Amino acid sequence: MMRIGVIGYGYWGPNVVRNFAELADAEVTVVSDDRPERLSEAQRRYPGIRVTTDALGLIADPAVDAVAIVTPVAFHFELASAALRAGKHVLVEKPIATTSDQASRLVDEAARRRLVLMVDHTFVYTGAVQKMRELVAGGELGDIHYYDSVRINLGLFQHDVDVLWDLAVHDLSIMDFVLAPQPVAVSATGLAHVAGRPKNIAYMTMFFDGPMIAHVHASWLAPVKVRRTLLGGSRRMIVFDDLEASEKIKVYDRGISVDPSPENVYQMLVGYRTGDMWAPKLALTEALQVEAAHFVDCVTRGARPQSDGESGLRVVRLLEAASASMQQHGRPVDIHGVTAA
Amino acid sequence: MMRIGVIGYGYWGPNVVRNFAELADAEVTVVSDDRPERLSEAQRRYPGIRVTTDALGLIADPAVDAVAIVTPVAFHFELASAALRAGKHVLVEKPIATTSDQASRLVDEAARRRLVLMVDHTFVYTGAVQKMRELVAGGELGDIHYYDSVRINLGLFQHDVDVLWDLAVHDLSIMDFVLAPQPVAVSATGLAHVAGRPKNIAYMTMFFDGPMIAHVHASWLAPVKVRRTLLGGSRRMIVFDDLEASEKIKVYDRGISVDPSPENVYQMLVGYRTGDMWAPKLALTEALQVEAAHFVDCVTRGARPQSDGESGLRVVRLLEAASASMQQHGRPVDIHGVTAA
Amino acid sequence: MMRIGVIGYGYWGPNVVRNFAELADAEVTVVSDDRPERLSEAQRRYPGIRVTTDALGLIADPAVDAVAIVTPVAFHFELASAALRAGKHVLVEKPIATTSDQASRLVDEAARRRLVLMVDHTFVYTGAVQKMRELVAGGELGDIHYYDSVRINLGLFQHDVDVLWDLAVHDLSIMDFVLAPQPVAVSATGLAHVAGRPKNIAYMTMFFDGPMIAHVHASWLAPVKVRRTLLGGSRRMIVFDDLEASEKIKVYDRGISVDPSPENVYQMLVGYRTGDMWAPKLALTEALQVEAAHFVDCVTRGARPQSDGESGLRVVRLLEAASASMQQHGRPVDIHGVTAA
Amino acid sequence: MMRIGVIGYGYWGPNVVRNFAELADAEVTVVSDDRPERLSEAQRRYPGIRVTTDALGLIADPAVDAVAIVTPVAFHFELASAALRAGKHVLVEKPIATTSDQASRLVDEAARRRLVLMVDHTFVYTGAVQKMRELVAGGELGDIHYYDSVRINLGLFQHDVDVLWDLAVHDLSIMDFVLAPQPVAVSATGLAHVAGRPKNIAYMTMFFDGPMIAHVHASWLAPVKVRRTLLGGSRRMIVFDDLEASEKIKVYDRGISVDPSPENVYQMLVGYRTGDMWAPKLALTEALQVEAAHFVDCVTRGARPQSDGESGLRVVRLLEAASASMQQHGRPVDIHGVTAA
Repeated sequence: MMRIGVIGYGYWGPNVVRNFAELADAEVTVVSDDRPERLSEAQRRYPGIRVTTDALGLIADPAVDAVAIVTPVAFHFELASAALRAGKHVLVEKPIATTSDQASRLVDEAARRRLVLMVDHTFVYTGAVQKMRELVAGGELGDIHYYDSVRINLGLFQHDVDVLWDLAVHDLSIMDFVLAPQPVAVSATGLAHVAGRPKNIAYMTMFFDGPMIAHVHASWLAPVKVRRTLLGGSRRMIVFDDLEASEKIKVYDRGISVDPSPENVYQMLVGYRTGDMWAPKLALTEALQVEAAHFVDCVTRGARPQSDGESGLRVVRLLEAASASMQQHGRPVDIHGVTAA
Repeated sequence: MMRIGVIGYGYWGPNVVRNFAELADAEVTVVSDDRPERLSEAQRRYPGIRVTTDALGLIADPAVDAVAIVTPVAFHFELASAALRAGKHVLVEKPIATTSDQASRLVDEAARRRLVLMVDHTFVYTGAVQKMRELVAGGELGDIHYYDSVRINLGLFQHDVDVLWDLAVHDLSIMDFVLAPQPVAVSATGLAHVAGRPKNIAYMTMFFDGPMIAHVHASWLAPVKVRRTLLGGSRRMIVFDDLEASEKIKVYDRGISVDPSPENVYQMLVGYRTGDMWAPKLALTEALQVEAAHFVDCVTRGARPQSDGESGLRVVRLLEAASASMQQHGRPVDIHGVTAA
Repeated sequence: MMRIGVIGYGYWGPNVVRNFAELADAEVTVVSDDRPERLSEAQRRYPGIRVTTDALGLIADPAVDAVAIVTPVAFHFELASAALRAGKHVLVEKPIATTSDQASRLVDEAARRRLVLMVDHTFVYTGAVQKMRELVAGGELGDIHYYDSVRINLGLFQHDVDVLWDLAVHDLSIMDFVLAPQPVAVSATGLAHVAGRPKNIAYMTMFFDGPMIAHVHASWLAPVKVRRTLLGGSRRMIVFDDLEASEKIKVYDRGISVDPSPENVYQMLVGYRTGDMWAPKLALTEALQVEAAHFVDCVTRGARPQSDGESGLRVVRLLEAASASMQQHGRPVDIHGVTAA
Repeated sequence: MMRIGVIGYGYWGPNVVRNFAELADAEVTVVSDDRPERLSEAQRRYPGIRVTTDALGLIADPAVDAVAIVTPVAFHFELASAALRAGKHVLVEKPIATTSDQASRLVDEAARRRLVLMVDHTFVYTGAVQKMRELVAGGELGDIHYYDSVRINLGLFQHDVDVLWDLAVHDLSIMDFVLAPQPVAVSATGLAHVAGRPKNIAYMTMFFDGPMIAHVHASWLAPVKVRRTLLGGSRRMIVFDDLEASEKIKVYDRGISVDPSPENVYQMLVGYRTGDMWAPKLALTEALQVEAAHFVDCVTRGARPQSDGESGLRVVRLLEAASASMQQHGRPVDIHGVTAA
């Protein structure tokens, strides 16, 4: 029976507690938050769980085998570092840290101590994204041409992070899980409509070594909610619409066909073909349930999580580069430390 | 009765001929094309119209008061220049020319000779875009925060122009008509998935003097067709979906509200509000019909068209800047000759 | 502080308990169910509420002012009768009873004892249906021409009631609330695809005294879920799509216009007109919350509920007539006891 | 080269002329209409076609091998009879005649003279309906449980026929083509909202020998246009949405599963299962093009058309029964002359 301590019981924390509590081979033993009213709420729903305002005490508690950190991102590094140094396995809310340097140090610390470090890239554990990875890995889409995502709504403006760190982070984690190649450069643009606040509309292009491109449009200032991702391959293309009640994933047997035979390039024919569309049945288990079980399983077996610390680091590197590019109105920024596949 | 000569009878030419032919105060007297089979088709449908393979002869024809140029863009400048020099009013297919220098010279030539020079920015004459302009000009949207457009489909790859010159040009012409301020810089990214061909996926951000941003996503490589534009203002926001059979324009009484009173910026509250949605009835007249009548009217009254040569020039300047930026992976490019409003 | 006893803690009971528990001027004092595991669940979530398997004991409990009956319909009459006889106000799940005779006797009993008898016609308390009633009562739609509803999905086949009593009951309660006239006759058709089971697809037409018609399509055997109601008036028409996240109600300024002037009927012109569409902002409060507060308010003030026993009776009369018609393949059945408005 | 004479050049006639004119092995030699302005229009578009106001002269013309009748339904019987008696093959607009007696006499006349009699059930020749028939015939759907169609819009009220004869006729022709069994009884309801005019809203249920049911909702008084048909089988279910630009046909791997093992019927489990959805690629050829070629082919080979006179007769029998039932508020009416499969 693995014993989990959860730090942070705000918006997302209750979901983390509930999903670990429902596992047969894990239990939540302590919950911490610095707001007493949140602890009362936790206590009311889970009379058997100890609550505390002392996060470092929770980390030091010998009755805790693993720590889930569900706080604002500013606290991720400090808390995760402390937990790893205390010999605890760690699950951190996304993004894993505020800088790639911090993320890198967490990865190193976990490796040195042979502890599991996992980042809560929730989308990775949805039936839809698992199916996308399966289709890409199985070659169903052919060569990947592009990833394009629109993730917009009328949303609460965040104090501490811009809209890329809040919304585009989901796409970066999906791309990291589904696609083999890594971006080598980023060009991002955006705007803060409220002076002195983080950017609330942003566009981010990612370049690769090879004929592939990725783009994310993230906004807190759209009149309608859109969650739509296109994934285009040479053989098939996917539309992933997360707002569809069912049929979230549609696979289109469509694409371009290039006839290289004509004598000169001007006559080269680029045609297109259309075939069936297919919406595979998807696993309906709550993503966080799958993720909690996976974390426990990785700790138990000493295995590497599907969303490990390295994936958290890669995502933060992209966000850092995007922020840098956005400051310079789209000037492309290389991703340091990346060796293209 | 104004006498029109139409150069080019390919995909769009028949629509131009039909719409001028249906006007009470205009007639199409000559059609030219260098493909005899296209001329046969024109002759079959319009036995009373003269056909010719000699475009320059058409321009010189004293029985022609105005010339509509509906050829590939490469021929626009030469033909429009010749027509203006021959004292003919000119309607040119979009984009008006292949370079801003050419466009500028056309504008100057028309001004010098006091001739009407109009570019076929067809969208400007749709009920939807006219309504958008009316709502913006009337202050219904408040301050404009952003313009965002997705214009994608699985389309024929063009030989001569990239996807921005083919598709984004529509958005640039809509923006030019609907919005008062002009972009001052551009950052664009894109990719050609077929080696040696024009870029088939492209993203284009436009910056303004002030808290406003615009973005266009254009693609010939999408499995589904999307034609959706968001226009966000401080009071209301518009969703323009051109694929809707009716209700192409939806006006949302939604937005953000900033409470500037709190003591420090971290406490400043940004809330959002939602109200009714409203889809105004739109004029259903075919855009090209409205446009043809407008051209005749401008010539008759010596008036300036809603899509005059200057608007054609401004659009080409943006496309030029986007192409330059795209070659440099998004490096921002200033729009020369622009003085922000 | 009004004290509520809730009988039945299955699918819907927990929602009833939660909504009464959240009211400031009411409290749930007892919950009964004959399944001990359901009582454990209730106890776990509400440690302060007494639980019992003895429904009649709950009814007799002096610490109970009002009883909410959330059991299968077969028990409604017996339990509601007992509660009324014990002097308790009663809220019954829909449909109010299995026969109009039973429903009628409940109405009489409540009237005799001056107790509140309310039926849980939940839809009546949604923002969407309240808005529909407001628009109809305010004359916005003009004369009502028709009500048409499709309420279908792939659903669990019920043991005890057919699809009209399970799904169409919602439409009948909406019609009863929104429309002034009452149906005078019913023609219904349907089929049971599993031998010996209640009908799982059904169609129900309702006739009125005057040029108005209503129809409901209910099914447990549809591959897609549809919840769409059309309400057509002489001035405007409504589309109510309950699956829309927002914009559940769309008001179309559309209709027919009859020109009675021509000399003979064959020349009489029936044209149609189209105008704006408008989606009013709707109250978002959970319907059951509004309903629970309304029940407490009616008891406190001695007022008549919007979904009173009579409305429950009228709905059951229609269901009875529909069942009779369905047995005879659509033969029309008069609604007894109805005097058209 | 088959020579066609077309009677009627109103709304649909030009489409018939165009499609026959485009065939390689047919030509339109004569067009008749009693409105001279329609003949001028025909002459303008087809200078080589003879035009006349004399329909009977057209029928008698030795330069006509086959006659297409595209007039109001009131003239179908007289003109088709005359054409058959003159030894001409006949294609008649739908419905084939105004009564089943007339339809029957046309069928007999054609049989006696060994002439092709075809009714213009256009939907039968669409890629979507051809695919539906292929899937049903191939057993992909399993046993058919139901056909349900909604065919509504804000439409022009007809003078001469009610909304079933105008719109439901499409569904009856689709059912006749796709489904093996024939309806044995009909219950229909409806209303005429304009006094003295044909019914403009109607509902029609069809019963079969066996656990299958069909229903059509037709209306000229809906604020939105809907063209959606559900076809439910024991193995799979189809949604046919004719307003979808692509993916008109969606095949859902969904249904109910009955577990007959439990001891008594009350415990019998009816579950449901959901699987993939699939939208097959459909042939995009214009239906009328397919139909015109099929007519010519049937005449040439002496073959029986897919929409032969008998199918026209069966459809009219259903419409007659529906009209009779509608007069009696839904009383079921048997289909005479039908022997269930």
